[in-house]
Amino acid sequence: MDNSRLQGIRTLISAEGIDSLLVSEQENRRYLSGFRGSSGWLFISQKQALLTTDFRYTEQARQESQGFEIMQTNGETAIWFTKLIQTHGWHKLGFEAQYIPFATYQQLSKIIEAEHLDLELIPCYRMVEKLRCIKDATELNIITKAVQLTDAAFTKFLSTIRPGITEKEIAWEVEGFLRKNGAEATAFDIIVATGPNTALPHAIPGERRLQQGEPILIDMGAKIDGYCSDFTRTVCIGKADKTLQEIYSIVLEAQQAAIEGIKSGMNGAEADTLARNIIEAAGYGNNFGHGLGHGIGLAIHEAPFLSRLSSDILSDSMVFSIEPGIYIQGYGGVRIEDTVRLENGSVKILTKSAKSLSF
Amino acid sequence: MDNSRLQGIRTLISAEGIDSLLVSEQENRRYLSGFRGSSGWLFISQKQALLTTDFRYTEQARQESQGFEIMQTNGETAIWFTKLIQTHGWHKLGFEAQYIPFATYQQLSKIIEAEHLDLELIPCYRMVEKLRCIKDATELNIITKAVQLTDAAFTKFLSTIRPGITEKEIAWEVEGFLRKNGAEATAFDIIVATGPNTALPHAIPGERRLQQGEPILIDMGAKIDGYCSDFTRTVCIGKADKTLQEIYSIVLEAQQAAIEGIKSGMNGAEADTLARNIIEAAGYGNNFGHGLGHGIGLAIHEAPFLSRLSSDILSDSMVFSIEPGIYIQGYGGVRIEDTVRLENGSVKILTKSAKSLSF
Repeated sequence: MDNSRLQGIRTLISAEGIDSLLVSEQENRRYLSGFRGSSGWLFISQKQALLTTDFRYTEQARQESQGFEIMQTNGETAIWFTKLIQTHGWHKLGFEAQYIPFATYQQLSKIIEAEHLDLELIPCYRMVEKLRCIKDATELNIITKAVQLTDAAFTKFLSTIRPGITEKEIAWEVEGFLRKNGAEATAFDIIVATGPNTALPHAIPGERRLQQGEPILIDMGAKIDGYCSDFTRTVCIGKADKTLQEIYSIVLEAQQAAIEGIKSGMNGAEADTLARNIIEAAGYGNNFGHGLGHGIGLAIHEAPFLSRLSSDILSDSMVFSIEPGIYIQGYGGVRIEDTVRLENGSVKILTKSAKSLSF
Repeated sequence: MDNSRLQGIRTLISAEGIDSLLVSEQENRRYLSGFRGSSGWLFISQKQALLTTDFRYTEQARQESQGFEIMQTNGETAIWFTKLIQTHGWHKLGFEAQYIPFATYQQLSKIIEAEHLDLELIPCYRMVEKLRCIKDATELNIITKAVQLTDAAFTKFLSTIRPGITEKEIAWEVEGFLRKNGAEATAFDIIVATGPNTALPHAIPGERRLQQGEPILIDMGAKIDGYCSDFTRTVCIGKADKTLQEIYSIVLEAQQAAIEGIKSGMNGAEADTLARNIIEAAGYGNNFGHGLGHGIGLAIHEAPFLSRLSSDILSDSMVFSIEPGIYIQGYGGVRIEDTVRLENGSVKILTKSAKSLSF
C-alpha cells in the first residue's frame, strides 16, 4: 500500500498523543491498507502495521495488504486482543469514536479490566478522514474516470427516456450501462424519480411511468477501483410548465454562484451560503432542506461537508459535490449536481454534461 | 405498519425496565416502521411511536410509516433531542448498543448533562432482532420468492459458464437475470470465483477466466421487498480431479448431516457441530474456518447465528443458511449453501437447486 498514507497517519498518531490507533471503518481501513474485505481491524503504531481479520478474509488480506502483518482472529476477542496488546506493549490505543459501536467499546473496556491491561482507550475523530479528503494524483485520475463514466451514462439516460417508461426500467438501463462500461458497482442505489416523486430528494425508483411535461431526475454515481462519482440532472420531455422552468433556473443560478464563489480557505458553511442565499432570495429557502454538497472519494459521502453547520475548511485537491435543489411537495423538484475539485484556489468542474431542462 | 410488531417491541420494552427505546439500526427501523430511508431514528414507548429524520426523507417517511408521528430534525441535535425528551417525559431511554457509535452515545450523554435532563441512557441488545428472527407468513412468503429467484438464477448461471468467460462477466449476467426477474437489488455483492480463487470464502469477481476441470463457485442472493435469499453452489466443467471430488463429497455430506440433524430447541453451536464433526473427521477441520450459517431476513446476516460460539436457540419459523465449506489455499474450495426454515421442529429446505459437482 501507499507508504505515504501510513506516514501521514503516524504523524497524526503522534500529534494525538496516542501510541497506537485502531482503524475499524471500512473505507479508512481500505485507504490505509488496500484491504477490500468487509471485516477487519487495523492496529497502527509508529513501528507496526497490523491487520486482524477472520478466516474468510485472511488469504485476501495477504494479497491486498502487503506491508501489513496479517493476524487471523480466532474465537474469543478477549484472548486475541489481550495477546495483541501485551505483545506490542501499547498503553494508549486510539479508536474511531464515530464508528466503533458502544457495545464494542464496552466489550474492550471489560477485557482491559478483567485482564488487568495497562491500556487506555482514547476516542479519536476523523484522523484517517483528514488524510482521505486531500486526493493525490492517482485518486484524482480514478475519480475523473468515474465522473466521465457518469457523463456517458447521462447520454445513455437521455436516449432511454420516453413517455411511458418506468422509473425502474430507466434505472436498470443506466446501471447496466455503468457496469458494462467499467464501473465495478454503482456508487449508491441509482435515484430515478418522475413527476411528483422528484420532490423526494432520495426517491426510490418505482413503477411510475414518465409523462410529457413533467420533471424527471436522475442521481447516480459510478464506482471505479473503489472511488465514486456523483451526478444529478433534472430534465423534462416536452414543454415544462412555468413553475418547473422557474425553479430550474433558480437552482441553476444557485449552483453557478457556488461554482464561481467557492474558494480554498472557505469553510463548508460559507460555501453553502453562496447557493442558499440565491434560493432564499427567490422565496424557496424552505424548499432546499439539505446541504450544498459533500466530499467524494472511497465513500460517496465523506469530508468535507458543505452545509449550514459545517466548519470543514475547503482546500486544494479536495473533491466534492455541488448540488443545490428545490423540492415542492406534491408537485416535484429540481436538483443539479456536479462533481468538482479545488485547484489553485478555485473550483474546477469535473462533470462535463450539459445543464438544460430540455434536450 | 404491522401493529403486532409494535406490540411485540412494547412487551420487550416493559421487560427491559425502560420507558422508551431508540431504534437506529436500518433494518430494525424498517421492520418496525416500514421506513426504507437510510437515515432516521425511531423513539418507541408504550404510547408513542415517533420517527425522526431529516428533510431528505420526511415526505417518504410520511408515505411509508403510517401510524408513526414524523418529526423533521433541523439543525443541532441538542435542541431537537432535548425538546423531544422533555415533551414526552421519558426517563429511561434504551438504545441499540451494537449500533449506536461511541461518539453518538457521548454526544447524547453531554446533552443530557448540559440540559439537566432527567434521563438515563440504557444499553440494550438484540431487542428488535428477537422479533425479526421469527418470520411471519408474509415474510416467509417473500423470502420463498427470493429463494425461487436464486434457483432460477442458478439455471441461468449454468447456461452462462463456459471455458474462457471471466468471473466478472458471469457475475454481471447473473445479476442482470436477478434484476430483470423481480429482484429490487442483489442481497450482497455476488461472489463468482474460479480455480484457486474459490479458496477465498468472500472472493471478489475479477478478470480470471474459467478453465475446464477447476472449481467455480457462485454465492448470490436476491432482495425482494427488502427480504434476502442466500445461495451457494460449487460446480466444475469437465472432469474434476480427485481432491475436488473428495472435498465436494465431504462438504455435501456435512451439509446433509446438518439438514437432517438440526432441530428446534438446539443452539447455534450444537447445529454447527453437526457439520463440523464430519469435516473434522475427514481431516479438513482447519479448512472450515467460518460458521455453519446465519439467519436471513431484511439483513443478509442476522440472528440466529449457527457457529462455534453461538448460544442462539433455534426455533420454528426461523430462516437461516446452512453452508459448510472446505478451503485449501492455492488450490481452491467448495461451499454448498441452502436457505432453510424450521417448521414443526425440523429443517425444511427452501432452495430447490440440485447439488452436483458436474452438470
